[in-house]
Amino acid sequence: MPELAYVNGKIGPIEEAVVPIEDRGYNFGDAVYEYVATYNGRLFRLEEHLERLARSMTALSFPPVSIDSIREAIVETHQASGIERAGIYLQISRGVDRRDHPFPQDSVPQVVMTVRHLAEKPVSYRQRGIGVITATDFRWHRCDIKTVQLLPNVMAKQRALDAGAFDAVFVSEEGVVREATSSNVYIANQGTIVTHPLTERILGGITRQVLLKVAQASGIPVAERFYTVEEMMAADEVLLTGTTTEVLPVVTVDGVPIGDGQPGPLCKTLFDALRKEAER
Amino acid sequence: MPELAYVNGKIGPIEEAVVPIEDRGYNFGDAVYEYVATYNGRLFRLEEHLERLARSMTALSFPPVSIDSIREAIVETHQASGIERAGIYLQISRGVDRRDHPFPQDSVPQVVMTVRHLAEKPVSYRQRGIGVITATDFRWHRCDIKTVQLLPNVMAKQRALDAGAFDAVFVSEEGVVREATSSNVYIANQGTIVTHPLTERILGGITRQVLLKVAQASGIPVAERFYTVEEMMAADEVLLTGTTTEVLPVVTVDGVPIGDGQPGPLCKTLFDALRKEAER
Repeated sequence: MPELAYVNGKIGPIEEAVVPIEDRGYNFGDAVYEYVATYNGRLFRLEEHLERLARSMTALSFPPVSIDSIREAIVETHQASGIERAGIYLQISRGVDRRDHPFPQDSVPQVVMTVRHLAEKPVSYRQRGIGVITATDFRWHRCDIKTVQLLPNVMAKQRALDAGAFDAVFVSEEGVVREATSSNVYIANQGTIVTHPLTERILGGITRQVLLKVAQASGIPVAERFYTVEEMMAADEVLLTGTTTEVLPVVTVDGVPIGDGQPGPLCKTLFDALRKEAER
Repeated sequence: MPELAYVNGKIGPIEEAVVPIEDRGYNFGDAVYEYVATYNGRLFRLEEHLERLARSMTALSFPPVSIDSIREAIVETHQASGIERAGIYLQISRGVDRRDHPFPQDSVPQVVMTVRHLAEKPVSYRQRGIGVITATDFRWHRCDIKTVQLLPNVMAKQRALDAGAFDAVFVSEEGVVREATSSNVYIANQGTIVTHPLTERILGGITRQVLLKVAQASGIPVAERFYTVEEMMAADEVLLTGTTTEVLPVVTVDGVPIGDGQPGPLCKTLFDALRKEAER
């Protein structure tokens, strides 16, 4: 069950996988990515990830890439690894060229991938809940495109860890709660789930899609609307979702307890429903 | 006079220079850079570039990097190339590690460089002037750190070219003129030069430093203050500066002529003063 890399059609050890220093992903962050998890050896929501990948590449006017060949590459590399519970990181850059801002003519997108054992979040995170800090959103304004423009996310995540929290939640200058550094954010109030609508300022998470679907199937009303930090602080529950995050209960924000400071019942219900969906 | 690459101490052909796919520069844009030009075989303002590089790395809490060793690497690679008028691109990433947002412990910054013939701007750009478009600033909010978070710059530059212009000028939502995709912007009014002050929203250009110095030495008053698109449209002259841009006259903004639509006298004076400074 080796962890493996894939680079433009070749599968091999991760340590040996390289890209040219003039890959535009390296010089400009001119690259998109997806992260797919497997449950019991099966790729969860692969088609949704591929659709979003295609949308990201279209939004950036990448040269055409065959999604069928990407699907094949993912399946083949995952099978070669034989890893049951895998995290598959796929990155596609615009191509390699002498460094210059404009899109190069006839560049060939570079496709790289790693298949690794997925590092699951400790069970204690779900049992005891996690803390987040708030951070003014200082990212670029096209967070709906899943690119590697991630340095602000990295900086905010590290700031959260340094503060003894699990993650940072980005908040607009007007106080609107956007999302966490690699997860969507939700509040629950009187049995209703509220989350930021799909705009250019957040990523449309695949787990977010699944969550909204399983919430509705469970009879939990969902509202997609803007909400403020004040609403979040006063909520019954706060949760995060993402491919590796799954569903996590937030029990403190900037050190202040949410509700009674314990994981709430909706979070548990939604985690169970997500796992059921993923494992069936 | 070969164009050369440098990767962590090794000099060789650019086509063979590679970095691991898990370099954080590639996965997160977690990297800083500098671009240094030579005139007559001499590195222009190398110390200022190295100082800014150190500031960028400090702002991102990179592990320590010896600036002396970077200076040596630049000089050595440039000498090996033997290129009189070179453009030296230097990029340093936080290091290589299994992809995960937090700063890795004990990562080793990766240092890569290319030394190429500098592609000078055509003389006609200075003689006839260039056109720019305006674009709402959608970049992240730490443009004072010289990182590879450059996808919005790439997108705006391409949009400008598609519109038949040379470059795009980023404008805040309130109408404040920030900077171009890889140059600082200035307006001239009744003999005074005005440019955006050094805040987190623009890069403190090395050529900007030089320009302000030579302007003052030439008896041209300089004001560092915010100014709007309306002021820019009504200005006597508009100019761009940067390491490869040098000093370029902007003669149209969004297709509307600036002044009489011809390059102005201050631009010519400042270009000549910059060249004199660079070539002495």
